Formats: sequence, structure tokens, C-alpha cells
Amino acid sequence: MITARPELDHALAAADEAAEEFAHSTPSTRAGRLRAVADALDAEAGTLVPLAHRETHLPENPRLSGELARTSFQLRLFAEVLVDGAWLDATVDHADPGWPMGARPDIRRVRTAIGPVLVFAASNFPFAFSVAGGDTASALAAGCPVVLKAHPGHPRLGARTGDVVTAALRGAGAPDGGFAVVHGDDVGVAALRDPRIRAAAFTGSVRGGRALFDVANARPRPIPFYGELGSLNPVVVTRAAVEARGDEIAREFVASFTLGAGQFCTKPGLLLAPEGSDMAGHLDRAVAAASPAPLLGEWIAQGYAARVADLHQAGAETLVAAEGGDPSRPAPQLFGAPAARLLAEDTTLGEEVFGPASVLVTYRDEAELREVLLRLAPSLTVSVQAEQADVPAVSRLMPVLTRAAGRLLWNQWPTGVTVTWAQQHGGPYPATTAPTTTSVGTAAIERFLRPVAWQGFPDDLLPPALRESNPWSLPRRVDGSRAPED
Amino acid sequence: MITARPELDHALAAADEAAEEFAHSTPSTRAGRLRAVADALDAEAGTLVPLAHRETHLPENPRLSGELARTSFQLRLFAEVLVDGAWLDATVDHADPGWPMGARPDIRRVRTAIGPVLVFAASNFPFAFSVAGGDTASALAAGCPVVLKAHPGHPRLGARTGDVVTAALRGAGAPDGGFAVVHGDDVGVAALRDPRIRAAAFTGSVRGGRALFDVANARPRPIPFYGELGSLNPVVVTRAAVEARGDEIAREFVASFTLGAGQFCTKPGLLLAPEGSDMAGHLDRAVAAASPAPLLGEWIAQGYAARVADLHQAGAETLVAAEGGDPSRPAPQLFGAPAARLLAEDTTLGEEVFGPASVLVTYRDEAELREVLLRLAPSLTVSVQAEQADVPAVSRLMPVLTRAAGRLLWNQWPTGVTVTWAQQHGGPYPATTAPTTTSVGTAAIERFLRPVAWQGFPDDLLPPALRESNPWSLPRRVDGSRAPED
Repeated sequence: MITARPELDHALAAADEAAEEFAHSTPSTRAGRLRAVADALDAEAGTLVPLAHRETHLPENPRLSGELARTSFQLRLFAEVLVDGAWLDATVDHADPGWPMGARPDIRRVRTAIGPVLVFAASNFPFAFSVAGGDTASALAAGCPVVLKAHPGHPRLGARTGDVVTAALRGAGAPDGGFAVVHGDDVGVAALRDPRIRAAAFTGSVRGGRALFDVANARPRPIPFYGELGSLNPVVVTRAAVEARGDEIAREFVASFTLGAGQFCTKPGLLLAPEGSDMAGHLDRAVAAASPAPLLGEWIAQGYAARVADLHQAGAETLVAAEGGDPSRPAPQLFGAPAARLLAEDTTLGEEVFGPASVLVTYRDEAELREVLLRLAPSLTVSVQAEQADVPAVSRLMPVLTRAAGRLLWNQWPTGVTVTWAQQHGGPYPATTAPTTTSVGTAAIERFLRPVAWQGFPDDLLPPALRESNPWSLPRRVDGSRAPED
Repeated sequence: MITARPELDHALAAADEAAEEFAHSTPSTRAGRLRAVADALDAEAGTLVPLAHRETHLPENPRLSGELARTSFQLRLFAEVLVDGAWLDATVDHADPGWPMGARPDIRRVRTAIGPVLVFAASNFPFAFSVAGGDTASALAAGCPVVLKAHPGHPRLGARTGDVVTAALRGAGAPDGGFAVVHGDDVGVAALRDPRIRAAAFTGSVRGGRALFDVANARPRPIPFYGELGSLNPVVVTRAAVEARGDEIAREFVASFTLGAGQFCTKPGLLLAPEGSDMAGHLDRAVAAASPAPLLGEWIAQGYAARVADLHQAGAETLVAAEGGDPSRPAPQLFGAPAARLLAEDTTLGEEVFGPASVLVTYRDEAELREVLLRLAPSLTVSVQAEQADVPAVSRLMPVLTRAAGRLLWNQWPTGVTVTWAQQHGGPYPATTAPTTTSVGTAAIERFLRPVAWQGFPDDLLPPALRESNPWSLPRRVDGSRAPED
């Protein structure tokens, strides 16, 4: 177990050493390695899931077993991405003496691995955003060695998962050193400062993520830092929707904001409902029927209590709280405030609360709703609960909704992020530190690739993706045309 | 002319106001606007080129007229990119109850404009990297308003070009406020700190670029900062190449490092030649035959003199200097040092010199050459001058060469960057602050786009790029398949 600087130095040297083999292995070789890791994780479910439960208090079924299934699926999906080849963005421009700005040389571009990547595991997803999660899967797919900083909330699971991944990679023929798990905040920061690390990825709090972002940018040679930090995930409900489906919306909203004890990055933390509608009444019944659930740990419970106190301080009143619970197993609760209050105060009402609480904000009219959406910090998601008759009004709001988040939902709930080709899990700061990227979905691989162009090279020195005969049968753009000519 | 805070505030408010129209205008509308700007620049060549010459001392023909032609060509190429549509990366995943990780909702992703972009003009390319240059062209193409910070080395050209661009955009129907030129370093920094600016682009020195990068990252809400800073652009020459073409290589190398008085970001600042070859002799004649040329301005001349003094301090000796010249028109010169010297000292010998000087570094063998390439900071380019017989040796070096730069050249010279689909103008720090991107070539548009996903939306609320009928006939990935199904 790597918990101190000398062992870290060894792990970084090994990652640096493995980088060349990783970068130049063929996509199909790497696809085989990802599938081997997925198979190994599935085979170890019987030990990994109970271990995760012991360290995180999350229920084994369906929560943790489902998360592990998502994790191995994600590895297999990146194997499919690798074989597809579009991620290489292979582009060939033949020499052209008639190129309008002046004769053009033969120039060809392809994406290559950025080098060793440092991944910080998240507290709240011990599988899908941790040791073998999306950041690791996309970095390995890109051809990058991974140094994984385990989360202190589930250290034994981190170590055990690391052993499974390491053994699977070795079994699939990958060189040693391409994957390592390290423990300890000091060790994580030292790794982030090390010149052998070429990019980093993080999922966690605004405070922790911003501190690491600052470390990455303060290096003599800064590196890309892909941080997913905090997200309020507002939900807009129209008057017609409250009238047509108020009870259903309330039940689904409470289910979403209390899922995983409200510890999801996509938890809806704000419900915007029209003044004078009966949304509060519907919510009163739904929240009262909810149950307490254990938080991930003592440090989360402390943060939750502090944020709840902040909300009171900022003028939010408690509308309803479920029965029972204690500080480590808080009862779900709902706060309330008029939109005018949110617009008048600083930013407290619009900040994420990590835990089973949300805020009902009532808006007077479309103009005030628009003002609130423009004021809120960007989120990972923004959702709309509306009826067909609301389409013209929502249409007017679309530019504001688009500015507010990376993913927009219509009559659906933001928790439960599917992993697909079209998924986008990102957004402007503080949702993430890198708004042009996603950390979930197949496009996540792009974060760990940098383009390199070859000008005038003999065919046998070009990477296979760029050779004239297109030996990998890749989709390529040739002389500006998407239809491959070769 | 905007030179003070109140006018800046007005320009930023106007950019913010125009952002919605810019983002939601159709690609073909924006293509028309880019072509209008290109036409207007071409029509004004007779006034712009002489004005550029007066402010930069660069020759009118072919240098400045060629640069203007490149600039208008670049705008037209981005118009072509817009119509092609692949840049939107439109992706459609239909709902799928059988998706292996669990039932999948309908989810669709497309790239959208990031919002108002601040562009810092460069000193050395008064057209192609300035007011209507590549950053502006790619930001406007992406649908982003642009606030352009003019370079103090050519302020009147900046203002005049700004007028041409503004009038052309207005003539093509763009809303006012989508483009503005501002002057002054304080105003530039104030704009960079302003929350209405959502991304920034810069081409210039390591010191200036790093300071602005730090400002962008220190914002309460940081934004992407695309800085192209400094680049050494090493050239590797093999023994066989010296023997076969030593004289030609020397002449071409001197032509490349003295082009534009050595003030190109792709200037080859280091020639790595084998010990005991006659490279120094060939270079002696070629440098002696070169002519002095005026630098861009007094501040460049001071920086050049200081860097030349640093080189001497670091143990480089003057091998040869051309005749004549003075501090504002320095004679081209070549310094020399053995590779062992570069490896022994800190980093001075491996830092960019902005002006007509380069360094000949002699290497003992392939192992020492590899060590030097690994030690040097990453560059925009690395070039190889070699013969067919060297292919096996160069093949062994390819991984190291790939780590060293964003563009690799074979028997060609790095100055004279073509604008094409495959071009890559970037690299790890200090070449740029954003190694996953390019500032030249069609992929430059990606810097100013962020992906947004729509989940479960009615067709008439989706952006046209994502509607089921594919009204723009875009290339799309549908349910994981590149072949469009619709």
C-alpha cells in the first residue's frame, strides 16, 4: 500500500516508464485490457460489494451492486469506443500546391495519449467514480497510465479494487507500473505537483477540488485538471405541471433528492415552483413519508449540519422534515424561501447541500424565474417539469437553461446518470473546472488525449492511424472530406 | 476607441447581450458573416498592409500581404467548417430499455457556444494572430462574441482592422456588440477578470501569458485560458543528412530562423547536430550571408539583448554573426554549445530567444540526443533532417519526439504554418497552456464550444442539430453508430 513519498516516487517512475508502451499499444490491445478489468471486477463482486457497504454505509442492493455493474459496463463501453476509432480524430491533408493560402505540405493529425494521469477517487461513488471508475476507464482507454489517489472514506475497498485492476491488467499483458493506488492527502498533492503527471481528474467538493485545481495550475508546467466540483441541479416546475401532476412530481423529486442520502453530484438541490401553486402541500406529504439513511461518514455529517445552519442563517425556513434520524442518519428535510430572498442575499441559498435536504423556491412570474436562473452558479444539470401547453414558455427560457448547465432534462430527474455516447456530465465552474469536457460518457476519453501532427513524414514512420493505406480502417477526414478516400 | 473601464464595461455588456443571438444563429448565417469579414479585409488590403508595415517594420511584400491573405483565407475556411457541421459532434441516443447498465433515456448531445471570448492580439502577426486572426475567426465561427485586446505594438492597425470587422459584421446582419476592440493592459486584465467573459485566448511570451493564465485561474469562477506562450522548436540533424545535404540544410535553417527577423513562434531555436560532423562549417557560411532586419519594436530589442547575454552566461559561445546591424536591426547570429553543457546547466540554453539567433548543440550519440530531447521543455514543433537510411534510428526516437511537441516535421522547416484540417499548433506547457487543443487549423473552433445534452425533450424544443428529422443533414452518431440512420 503506497502511503509515503518514497513509494510514491517509485510508482510515478513506473508510470512514466510504462507510458510509452501504453501510448503505443494498439486500440484493440487496450480494449482487451479494459475487458479483462471489467471481467475481474464482476468476478469479485461478492467481496467488493460487501466491503463497499461496510466502508460507505450505502445499501448493497441495488445501490452498490448496480454501481459495480455500471462500472464494469463502462469499461466495456470504452473497449467498444477504442475499436470504433473515431476518438482518434485521424485527419489527412495531402500536399496541395494549389491550396489558396499557399502551397500546402502533406500534414496528418491524430490524437495521442497525454501521459500518466492522476485520478482522485470520490467519496460517494466507491466504484463508478473511484478506483476503476469513469476517469480511470477513460484514461486507460486513451493509453495513459493511471495513479489513483484512493478516497479516505473507503480505503480498504480502494486497495482491494486496486489489486483486482492491477492483476487483471497484468494478466492481459500490460506492463507493470501502468496502474497504482496511493493513499493520503499529502501523497496526492505531491503526485499532483510531480512533473511525471501530465493530467489529473477529480470528483468531489468545491473546496477540495478548487485547492487541487490551484495546485495543478501553480506547477512550473501546469497540466489540465478535470475537476467536477459542486452542483445545485435546479428543477423548474410550471403551474400547469403542479396542477396536472403535483403529487407525482413531489414524490419523484423527494425520491431523487434523497437517493443515496442526498449524496449524489446530480442531486436536485432547488425546486423552483410558481407562487400560489400547491407545490408546498404536495411536498409536505412526500417529505414526511421519506426515511432517514446513513451518511457516508462523520465528516459528511459535520458538513451537512453546517450547511443546514447556513441555510437558516440565509433566511430559509424549514417547511417539513421527515421523522426520526440522528446526525449520522439525518431525516430528509425541505427548506423554503421566495425567489426574492434568493435574489437579495449573497449565494448561500444557491449552494449545494451534500445530504438529504433541498430548497423550495417560489417564483412570481417568468421574468423572476429567468432572473433566478441567470443568477445561479452553473450546474451539471437543470430540469424542467412542464406540460405540453408550456412549450412556448419553455422555448423562451431555453437559452437561459442552456447557459445554466451541461445537461437539460424534460420531465425526468437528474440522479441516475446513464453512460452512453451522448451523455454529458459537465458544465461551467463550479460544476466543473473544464466546461468543454465531460467526465461521463464516451467523450470522456478526449480529456486524456492531445493531438499531434506529422508533416512530410515517410509512410513507415507515421503512426498506423495516419498511414496512406489506413491499416486500421479508421473513419478519417481526408483532404477536407469526411468520406474516406482510402 | 475603448481604453478605459467605463467603455470596457459597455463593451462587455454588449457582448453579453449579443451572446444569445450569436450562439443561436445558424451555422450558415455565421458562415456568411465570416465570408463578409474576409471580403472586407481583402478589399481594405491597400490601407491595412501599409499601416501594418509602419507599425511593425515587417516588409509589405510578400510578408504582410501574404499574412493578410492567410487571414481572409482562414475566415473562409471556418465558413466551410461551419457548413460541414462535424464540429457540432451531434450525437443521438434513443431510449433503450435493454441498455446493459439499466434502461437508458433518450439523450442527445451537441456543442454550443461557450459565450463571450476575450482574445489578446499578438505582436508578431499583426493580421493572422491579431484582430481578425485565428482566435477571432474560430470564436466567431463557434458563435461567440469577441472582445479583442489590441497589441500595443500596432494599435492603429488594431483599431482600423476592428472598424473593418465591425462594419462587415453589421453589414452581414450580426447584432451590434458582438465584436469590440479594446486597448491597454489594465483594460485587458479587467476584461479577463469580468464574469461576462467565458474563455480567453492569447499568443505571446511565456511571462505575459503565464501572468494572464494565472489571472484567469484565480477568478472566483475560472474559465478556459488558451495561451500559446514560448517554443524552442528543436531541429535534429543526422550525420547522414549533414553529409548528403549539409550546405542546403544550413541555408534553409538560417532562412527559417531569420524569417521575420526570428520573431516567429515556430522559429527553430536549436539545431542538434552530431559531434564531429561539418555542420558548423556549413552554418558558418550560411549565417555570414544573412542580413539584418528590423525588430518589431524597442521592447523586443531589449528582450533580445537580454536573452543573448543570458546565453553567454550559460556557456554558449558565439560561433558566427552576420555583418552590420544595430540593436534595433540585429545581425543574425549563431551560438554553440555541446549537449553536455545543456544537460549540465539549468534551462537557459533550452529557452526561446525571440529574434534572429539560434543555437547549435552537438550531440555525441543517439543516447545523448535522446537525453536532450527528454530534457527540453515541450515545443510547438520538432523537426528531423534525416536520410532514408536513418529511418530505423528515427523510428526508435519517435516516442521521444512525440512527447516533445505538437507537430513533427520530416525534412521540412517549422516556420510557415499552413491552415488546414489536419494542422496542429499546440503542445504541452510552455508551448501552450492547453495541450489538448490547437490554435491553428479547423480544430481551433473546439476551444470555444461546450457540449450540452438534452434528455427526454420534445422534438420541437430540441436544437435543430438534434431533432429527429436531422433538418440540417448533419453527420451524426445515432445509437452508437456513425452511419446516420435518419
